[in-house]
Amino acid sequence: MNEKTTIRRLPERGVDDRAVIDAILDEGLVCHAAYVVDKRPVVIPTLYARDGDRLLLHGSPASGLARAVRSNSPLSVAVTLVDGIVVARSGFHSSANYRSVVVHGTGRLLAGEERQRALDLIVEALIPGRLADIREPTAAESGQTAVIELSLDEVSGKVRSGGPKDDPVDLGTPVWAGVVPLRMVAGRAQAADDVGPEIPVPGYLSPYERY
Amino acid sequence: MNEKTTIRRLPERGVDDRAVIDAILDEGLVCHAAYVVDKRPVVIPTLYARDGDRLLLHGSPASGLARAVRSNSPLSVAVTLVDGIVVARSGFHSSANYRSVVVHGTGRLLAGEERQRALDLIVEALIPGRLADIREPTAAESGQTAVIELSLDEVSGKVRSGGPKDDPVDLGTPVWAGVVPLRMVAGRAQAADDVGPEIPVPGYLSPYERY
Repeated sequence: MNEKTTIRRLPERGVDDRAVIDAILDEGLVCHAAYVVDKRPVVIPTLYARDGDRLLLHGSPASGLARAVRSNSPLSVAVTLVDGIVVARSGFHSSANYRSVVVHGTGRLLAGEERQRALDLIVEALIPGRLADIREPTAAESGQTAVIELSLDEVSGKVRSGGPKDDPVDLGTPVWAGVVPLRMVAGRAQAADDVGPEIPVPGYLSPYERY
Repeated sequence: MNEKTTIRRLPERGVDDRAVIDAILDEGLVCHAAYVVDKRPVVIPTLYARDGDRLLLHGSPASGLARAVRSNSPLSVAVTLVDGIVVARSGFHSSANYRSVVVHGTGRLLAGEERQRALDLIVEALIPGRLADIREPTAAESGQTAVIELSLDEVSGKVRSGGPKDDPVDLGTPVWAGVVPLRMVAGRAQAADDVGPEIPVPGYLSPYERY
């Protein structure tokens, strides 16, 4: 971990355990990818998958992100999961519980077989179990999708969990404090209009669960 | 809306209706802010509030984000809400339903009364109703927090909703397609260990609801 990925202010929240980092990346659905154009930053949300020691980002070949990668411009990619609201006895200590990962590096655009395989991995990251039910992508479809590979060589995590860390002066005051847990939940799968009643909801969507 | 904030590839998903954009910003809890250091992008998650025509970002005065603003370096800030998984009959059309906003601009660090007021707004954005229950921040606390104001002058939104847009060749195949809705839900508020039973959970947390 080099200087850029060292947590400066809150070392107690820094995480460099790859198992923890991988679990955050595997639970997330959307990452935020930043790149530089004309000395200005641009950040966009995009779908992704983790495959071992790399992230695979999904985008349009004409997107600014793909163009940045094509010109070897560096990226910064964050995945953040919000786990709760920390309700402290002061505004200063009010916060959120979260788990986040930031990756820095220079991406690489995949092509051919590598891209095809990466697209499969992104589908499986989004909908585990889905790949067995759908056809192979056509060459035209693959060509219309950019997949960016970003190594996890330069990666760091941050985690905040637990209750408020109130100032001693506020303890014992008659003000409630604690945590409101937050989580992402999936509702019941809703069939498209043109799906007949003879086609059941696949087992991997009833319920949809990632972990 | 200038060239940078015009949606290039999928105009049908671009949104410039400020009411829609404001609703996305008001529902989000965490934004991803990108800035440039030594020609490289850095993206970090942070809490924020919207106040009229500006975002208020919360951070450490020593953070890279605050330093970037101090040197008039431009920012890009994204807020993304994931509403569902789009389960199409092909990998190519598989997607996510989402609402996102990206803001570009040069931030301004607030100080004094402006910062104090902004910190209050951030607490209220995180926990609507909370401000009436907690003490004023001390001068020391305010000094330890950076608040960055970013104008919404240059803002754009993107929304995807509804079912899969399958390729005609896949319609009528015996493969289920549809949407799995996703939403963030709050659990029951959990009191900190040092909160006695005589202190009830405040009404604004039972349940915690933002909208």
